[in-house]
Amino acid sequence: MNNPLSSDFVIGFLGAGQLARMSALQAFRFGMQVAVFSDRPEDEPVQFMTPRSYSGSFSDVESMLEFARSCNVITLENEFIDSGILQKLRNLSGTPMFPSPESFALIENKRIEKETFEKAGIPVTPYEIVETSDDLSRFGELHGWPYLLKSSKGGYDGYGNQTVKSLEEALNAFQNLGGNTGHEILAEAFVDFTHELAVQVARNETGHIVYPCCETVQENHICVAVKTPAPVSLDIQKRAQELAIRATEAINGKGIFAFEFFLTRKGELLLNESAPRPHNSGHYSIEGCVTSQFENHIRAVCGMPLGNPELIKPAAVMINLLGTQNRPTVIENSEAALSEPNGHMHHYGKLHSKPGRKMAHYTLLGNHVEVTYSRAKKLTSNIEI
Amino acid sequence: MNNPLSSDFVIGFLGAGQLARMSALQAFRFGMQVAVFSDRPEDEPVQFMTPRSYSGSFSDVESMLEFARSCNVITLENEFIDSGILQKLRNLSGTPMFPSPESFALIENKRIEKETFEKAGIPVTPYEIVETSDDLSRFGELHGWPYLLKSSKGGYDGYGNQTVKSLEEALNAFQNLGGNTGHEILAEAFVDFTHELAVQVARNETGHIVYPCCETVQENHICVAVKTPAPVSLDIQKRAQELAIRATEAINGKGIFAFEFFLTRKGELLLNESAPRPHNSGHYSIEGCVTSQFENHIRAVCGMPLGNPELIKPAAVMINLLGTQNRPTVIENSEAALSEPNGHMHHYGKLHSKPGRKMAHYTLLGNHVEVTYSRAKKLTSNIEI
Repeated sequence: MNNPLSSDFVIGFLGAGQLARMSALQAFRFGMQVAVFSDRPEDEPVQFMTPRSYSGSFSDVESMLEFARSCNVITLENEFIDSGILQKLRNLSGTPMFPSPESFALIENKRIEKETFEKAGIPVTPYEIVETSDDLSRFGELHGWPYLLKSSKGGYDGYGNQTVKSLEEALNAFQNLGGNTGHEILAEAFVDFTHELAVQVARNETGHIVYPCCETVQENHICVAVKTPAPVSLDIQKRAQELAIRATEAINGKGIFAFEFFLTRKGELLLNESAPRPHNSGHYSIEGCVTSQFENHIRAVCGMPLGNPELIKPAAVMINLLGTQNRPTVIENSEAALSEPNGHMHHYGKLHSKPGRKMAHYTLLGNHVEVTYSRAKKLTSNIEI
Repeated sequence: MNNPLSSDFVIGFLGAGQLARMSALQAFRFGMQVAVFSDRPEDEPVQFMTPRSYSGSFSDVESMLEFARSCNVITLENEFIDSGILQKLRNLSGTPMFPSPESFALIENKRIEKETFEKAGIPVTPYEIVETSDDLSRFGELHGWPYLLKSSKGGYDGYGNQTVKSLEEALNAFQNLGGNTGHEILAEAFVDFTHELAVQVARNETGHIVYPCCETVQENHICVAVKTPAPVSLDIQKRAQELAIRATEAINGKGIFAFEFFLTRKGELLLNESAPRPHNSGHYSIEGCVTSQFENHIRAVCGMPLGNPELIKPAAVMINLLGTQNRPTVIENSEAALSEPNGHMHHYGKLHSKPGRKMAHYTLLGNHVEVTYSRAKKLTSNIEI
């Protein structure tokens, strides 16, 4: 790869959502040019940030080839592209791609992901591949009802997942998830947890860095807030960081990765999900840490030395600002949040808002995580989007 | 003006240099779209950051009109456009412009600028308009040789300025600066100073904020480094901040403004230059302060509440990384700077480097300003661009 601090260096994002957008902002700070490839028909905000905008289908290597050839390095903005297609695209274009398709192949499918991490000695949530009515019934008897059914590929934020309370619901969900049309379906036990934790790791040939352990606060399977550091013991925080590093090594990851854990009532950490990219749980790092997850993402995939992930204040809280109305986007009643001395507003520039859509986020730094969390919630409680 | 946190809100920059680029990065964080107008034939880096790119002449209102009409608000990236033209552009397009042409008119010409600030009780460096050989000679006798000759309009970073040691040099310089073709020429006394200081102020209808007082370190009339806080007494720092606020009020400024002062050997502060825009002396604020000068620039011109300008660590030092070679841009030997735990690299993405050209900057945060300055110089001393 060329020196990434050359002004003709182009970094390409496969995917054009808010993660590509925030990553692009950091790439620009390093003087790079940015190319994006979108599979959506509508205008995506990151397309307003570069003239190098391409579109087509993630399942068609040919349609991505011109984009890929225009880049010095390619990275992923989501995990909805098949690793085999990524491999073909990299080989045909000759453009380096990080995380590599080989790393991605180890986590793109939930079953393979769990097997990969189990092999590396990382505890995961109890699961089983289910194919028959008997499987569905036995899993419930063994691990208790309700449990989760998930597609092995393609789910996020609750999409592609269903909670089932009985065999009847399980049979319906199995069909809804495409289990009768060759889709691999995975049953996963409900974990009796006290906290959902997350950790980001950046890694490349120069070494690795690990971010603080944070807590993600979920409502209806959507992350609504992140508290850093997580309000759990230092021992637990450290163990989550260690597991996250081990998981990154297990897939020979180059780039930034996010890992989500359940902390069970018994004090056990179970790896729940992984993402080969910047993650909503790491948005607090933009102002909260010396080096943001986006900067370390760019540094990692470009082979640069990694930056310091330390918190700059004792606590950082991020509130996801979800759409409240179905309308062209406008953020109202944000004066309190904007006027707060340690608050930071990020608006993703999406053209249309709808209830529950991730439209913006707000980060507040402070000295005590719970006090900061209460204050951040209060400052953002009247915002309408 | 519309709510600036609407996703179809467009902020326009008249000028396409690195200040527009760094301002645009903040506008994107607020979900805005960015338009730029360039008067240069070559590709400017900010043009790689938006498809809304226009070009033409700063002296031709018609050529800027389409750009102006496409924006919800316009701001200036430099001070080389005539305030009368700005006024016409604003009136014809109907697009608000901040700082206003009326504010700008009070500082675009060095004579008027000095008169404006003197009237507000702000001490300025001794000066006189010179028109004849007698004027040139008398100024030297009164204030001592050498002194400076400056065009009233259009100079920056030493361009448009000449130091003259004798009447003969003064006569030559007077001609070189166009003094014989109707250009107004100003003689300015050399000030016996111990420090050059700078302060940024942001102001709009919601109030004003003032940044810490920093020291600018100059070599050959080019700023090579900035130390914050300035290594002068707290009293002097506070007085510089007060004068900067008074100066902003004197021009009824809306936006961000930078003011440069001489601290004389006698402990007097003299206002030397002002800029109606983000300024090189404020780049340290990107990581050094809670809210950067660029964010407060965007907030100010869009009528948003202003952000907290406090330092996040006791010291912030910025090193300008100037081109060392004439070649396509590439930053070499930057590993030490990139690996430093509290260091931050910014590369402007200019396509071509040449000796002395501002290509990038490096900010280092620390606990003691002089220790941090020494370390920052050392970390960047081998960089080749």
